[in-house]
Amino acid sequence: MKDDMIKGVKGFKFSARSAGIKKSGKPDLALIYSEVPARCAGVFTTNKVVAAPVLVTAPRVETGSCQAVLVNSGNANACTGEQGMRDALQCGALAARALGISEEMLAVSSTGVIGHLLPMEKFERHVPHLAADLVADGAESVARAIMTTDAFSKMASAREHVEETEYTLLGIAKGAGMIHPNMATMLAFVLTDAVVEPQFLREALRRATDVSFNSITVDGDTSTNDMVLLMANGVAQNAEIRGGTPAGEAFCAALNRVMLDLAKMIVRDGEGATKLVEIRVRGAVDEADARRAACAISTSSLVKTAFFGEDANWGRIIAAAGYSGAALDPERIDILFEDIPVVRNGIGTGKDLEEKASEILKRNEFTVIVDLHLGPAEASYYTSDLTYDYVKINAAYRT
Amino acid sequence: MKDDMIKGVKGFKFSARSAGIKKSGKPDLALIYSEVPARCAGVFTTNKVVAAPVLVTAPRVETGSCQAVLVNSGNANACTGEQGMRDALQCGALAARALGISEEMLAVSSTGVIGHLLPMEKFERHVPHLAADLVADGAESVARAIMTTDAFSKMASAREHVEETEYTLLGIAKGAGMIHPNMATMLAFVLTDAVVEPQFLREALRRATDVSFNSITVDGDTSTNDMVLLMANGVAQNAEIRGGTPAGEAFCAALNRVMLDLAKMIVRDGEGATKLVEIRVRGAVDEADARRAACAISTSSLVKTAFFGEDANWGRIIAAAGYSGAALDPERIDILFEDIPVVRNGIGTGKDLEEKASEILKRNEFTVIVDLHLGPAEASYYTSDLTYDYVKINAAYRT
Repeated sequence: MKDDMIKGVKGFKFSARSAGIKKSGKPDLALIYSEVPARCAGVFTTNKVVAAPVLVTAPRVETGSCQAVLVNSGNANACTGEQGMRDALQCGALAARALGISEEMLAVSSTGVIGHLLPMEKFERHVPHLAADLVADGAESVARAIMTTDAFSKMASAREHVEETEYTLLGIAKGAGMIHPNMATMLAFVLTDAVVEPQFLREALRRATDVSFNSITVDGDTSTNDMVLLMANGVAQNAEIRGGTPAGEAFCAALNRVMLDLAKMIVRDGEGATKLVEIRVRGAVDEADARRAACAISTSSLVKTAFFGEDANWGRIIAAAGYSGAALDPERIDILFEDIPVVRNGIGTGKDLEEKASEILKRNEFTVIVDLHLGPAEASYYTSDLTYDYVKINAAYRT
Repeated sequence: MKDDMIKGVKGFKFSARSAGIKKSGKPDLALIYSEVPARCAGVFTTNKVVAAPVLVTAPRVETGSCQAVLVNSGNANACTGEQGMRDALQCGALAARALGISEEMLAVSSTGVIGHLLPMEKFERHVPHLAADLVADGAESVARAIMTTDAFSKMASAREHVEETEYTLLGIAKGAGMIHPNMATMLAFVLTDAVVEPQFLREALRRATDVSFNSITVDGDTSTNDMVLLMANGVAQNAEIRGGTPAGEAFCAALNRVMLDLAKMIVRDGEGATKLVEIRVRGAVDEADARRAACAISTSSLVKTAFFGEDANWGRIIAAAGYSGAALDPERIDILFEDIPVVRNGIGTGKDLEEKASEILKRNEFTVIVDLHLGPAEASYYTSDLTYDYVKINAAYRT
């Protein structure tokens, strides 16, 4: 993580507590608060089964304005029916009352087990303390409180400037199930003190999501609770950042960097994962095809177990490309592990180079390049290896 | 397996050998031979990367006539370029010469590691012996010789009759990678002595494939070598079986049963699998939707690890249905483990019933029913649990 000295953003305050929602007694309730109303944009799950907090928060974010986020781990408040909706609304109401702001300015977010009602008495007891305990340097405590199966907390940040005025971006995320991304809830909150034109803020978030969180997951394969929020409170008082300008480009680049850093942390923390692998498909006819092939390779259990076994088993990679739906000509495909070619024109380059490639597989991070030699487009996906511990974590998660 | 006394089919002979293609020294080369030319139909991989034996065999089967199959395990002859094509043709030529039949009547089939050339000297040495050793009751030896990571050999059979004339169906299959079906080669050879009208033979195979092998795999997610061959040599001399007749229906039912038996064996032998689970989706708007939902649930690693953990974690099931693309209304969904309802109208039925459901998960075989309550359509997929041994087998397969 670059800029690892950044621990806060002007005008934002944070607090977190152990409210007893998690059986473990670890921190599980957190509050993010902006001293002034912030412009905001959001990206939400595309799952047809949508958790109550997402149903409550999405229309509020749609208004473009937000001032605080109450987030809990240990319980997803999903598949909880009308009572779940009432509870999500009540969570927001509790936080709004404690902060003295309108309920409409409150986003609520949950992650954890599906199908259990929230323990509302714990929210009633602890939310007032959260509001009282807000501090400027508490982002790290929020990052810890939203963890579920995460092995480590996730933050990333960047500094940029508009003319002479500096602004900060700080991202906080959770998620660790990206080995197979079906249902591991991913939450991310990106905070900035920059003044950003509202429509451009939405557009920047959409673009950054595509090259970060949407490049570690299959489109549509989102959990019931996924949520990415971007809040810009304008406290930096820079000249408004707009699309189609150098300042807008710089903002997008910084936002992409922060979100890609977070996304890679999620892969690196893939349940049981020991490796972070970039699957870079190039020479595709168009970007959609490049993404299709990269996605199929990245999500293949056979490819991922081969990475765990440190086996340069390119046959599994070429076969995944073959069923991905991407246009390809098997006799043109090259595959490289970093700079070691193991396939040229669809045929293996032999044992010596494959053994060299196996050396690369021993690294914790490496890149696999699949060149289709058909067109100009490329795309990268980030994946992890599939390990014994993945099975262990997911077989034992609830019981 | 019903009819487990059936060990042969009139007019078919079999042989198998250890030719040294597998390092283990286990049987790896087999021959199936019909004493008379058989009518045939085939289903082949839809992968864009297609192995040489498939490229050689598919157009021959397309002619509708075939008399023998030479099949090896231990080497897939995939991604082997022009030399691979020459080798596949030469395999067929060797067998045709040894049998004294036309090369065009020979199907060739391979399964095993991708990217290595076939050891042709071993084929030259052993194929003549295969031809000399053909016996009527050798089907079981063929089933053993085509195994790769299979834990057990796979055969299924049925007897039917047209008027007074009895005929037999015998299926032989291999495949054990259905935990994630990306690339585990599936081969199946179904032999019958029935007289079947050629066009109806093709149609019956296509329909049977849909409800058997295509219900344990994601459409398109096939390996470079997948192949299902159906050979009907007519030795039973029954009145020709045609479509749209009771005899045709009986033939389809018997073929479906044999192929579904084989498909279930493949799932039961899923690499490292300990459970066979039927995912039955009903109440879907149409069959395509039912298949979509059943497929998404069946292939979710999170669902499959929960089965291994014997955890009635219905949240993962409902979420997989949610991202499957099938039309659904979360508030109408019911989920049952056998006859135990764990979800009614999208909401959990409580701890007591969930604990009862967990008892069902301890079984080796059980059915999960997901009722969307939207329409009349239903479909079943068969899946297995995802276990430590899956990772072990696939991380170590080549090394």
